[in-house]
Amino acid sequence: MTRQTLNREIQNKKSCLCVGLDVSPVSLEINKRIIDQTAPYAVAYKPNTAFYEAAGWKGWKCLEETVMYIRSKYPSHFLIADAKRGDIGNTAREYARTFFERMDFDAVTLSPYMGYDSVAPFLEFENKWIILLVLTSNPSATDFQTAEMKEGQSLYRKIIETANTWAGNDRLMYVTGATRGEMIKQVREAAPDRFLLIPGVGTQGGSVEEVMRYAKTQQGDILINVSRAIVQSPEGPGAAARSFAGRMSPFFS
Amino acid sequence: MTRQTLNREIQNKKSCLCVGLDVSPVSLEINKRIIDQTAPYAVAYKPNTAFYEAAGWKGWKCLEETVMYIRSKYPSHFLIADAKRGDIGNTAREYARTFFERMDFDAVTLSPYMGYDSVAPFLEFENKWIILLVLTSNPSATDFQTAEMKEGQSLYRKIIETANTWAGNDRLMYVTGATRGEMIKQVREAAPDRFLLIPGVGTQGGSVEEVMRYAKTQQGDILINVSRAIVQSPEGPGAAARSFAGRMSPFFS
Repeated sequence: MTRQTLNREIQNKKSCLCVGLDVSPVSLEINKRIIDQTAPYAVAYKPNTAFYEAAGWKGWKCLEETVMYIRSKYPSHFLIADAKRGDIGNTAREYARTFFERMDFDAVTLSPYMGYDSVAPFLEFENKWIILLVLTSNPSATDFQTAEMKEGQSLYRKIIETANTWAGNDRLMYVTGATRGEMIKQVREAAPDRFLLIPGVGTQGGSVEEVMRYAKTQQGDILINVSRAIVQSPEGPGAAARSFAGRMSPFFS
Repeated sequence: MTRQTLNREIQNKKSCLCVGLDVSPVSLEINKRIIDQTAPYAVAYKPNTAFYEAAGWKGWKCLEETVMYIRSKYPSHFLIADAKRGDIGNTAREYARTFFERMDFDAVTLSPYMGYDSVAPFLEFENKWIILLVLTSNPSATDFQTAEMKEGQSLYRKIIETANTWAGNDRLMYVTGATRGEMIKQVREAAPDRFLLIPGVGTQGGSVEEVMRYAKTQQGDILINVSRAIVQSPEGPGAAARSFAGRMSPFFS
């Protein structure tokens, strides 16, 4: 899916909601219910592979079936494998085949630590995206991500500046936690015309409004992920997703 | 498995060989043959999850069965999940359950980028290890790993110094690529009494002898991983493993 197509979906729905399909224990039936209820309010789905792997090969099968379900029933939704992989060339190629060939994901999240040749094999797949971790929503993100480099900038900023040269804004986006409002501004400044995938609103406490204000461009260019606050919502995933999307719509003119 | 037990295995066999079970396409029968042939010369096995995931849920099943096979037939071999995972707290917990509960691995490789709280859930499992990427064997390792921090040291060195405080030498080891001889010395200097897992000899061209000289301590404290040069060896995995172990034995007194 191109940046333009995804932004058009976002504008049409006045929503940049990505639903994190993180259910434990995993279940295809539960996923189908969540997807059917949230599809009108969401533009993307993001299963985190950890939850599926924890259920063994049956969990992995559930992940494959979930992807097929979304692909066949909701073909205009953007599909992210939240895998946070990162490995060397020949191994990275296996991961790329897994998420882009065997399963038809649009994008996969990757760790930048091993550098360019750990992401290059993913870029060989046309119309597929990589989403690079730069600034995450967990407290220990400050251990290394915000550490200061010799040149004066933070490590995450150095990673953005370097990775900006790896692929265009139709192929590469960044992960930025919503729990660091001031820093979302800085990431947007370093990547003015790229999609940002923003987790951390909902249970982790980040503000939807702050994210919309700091990160949205005129075209859109953001996906705000909500997992637990939707899939575990007492009012049901549909109502919760509608409510989150309703907080996003005022930011679309 | 404790550091002492693993070092005893290494001393008894005069080998610190870890066999990387990276076969494509994956096959339980092929794995069994590789394991049976190499077990006398190896002290550890390290399947890389990428190869199993690329075969879908059947590949994941093959991984589970491979682990069960090694556990039942070769209980004194150390078992590493080369997964290079790294995610926030609740998700990291799912990964930890996957590799330490559902499958009975001794250790899992992790990316340090997200900091302490992405590894802490793995440390809750007694007698299990985490193996942190610090300096990898791929050319792009220089993109960020060797970048200079404000304080003058490299990022990978900062990570070692920080992670040394996270867990003792019975629970945490580091990955250091064998393709950077001079840097192995520096990693050993920063982590004088910890296990190092060293990939990159064999197909990637690192020298077994250089690694033994620079990285081995009196107790042992290293695992040298060889994947393709053993599992794809024209002389067969057994002969190849014996040959690699034979190059290690002179370094044991």
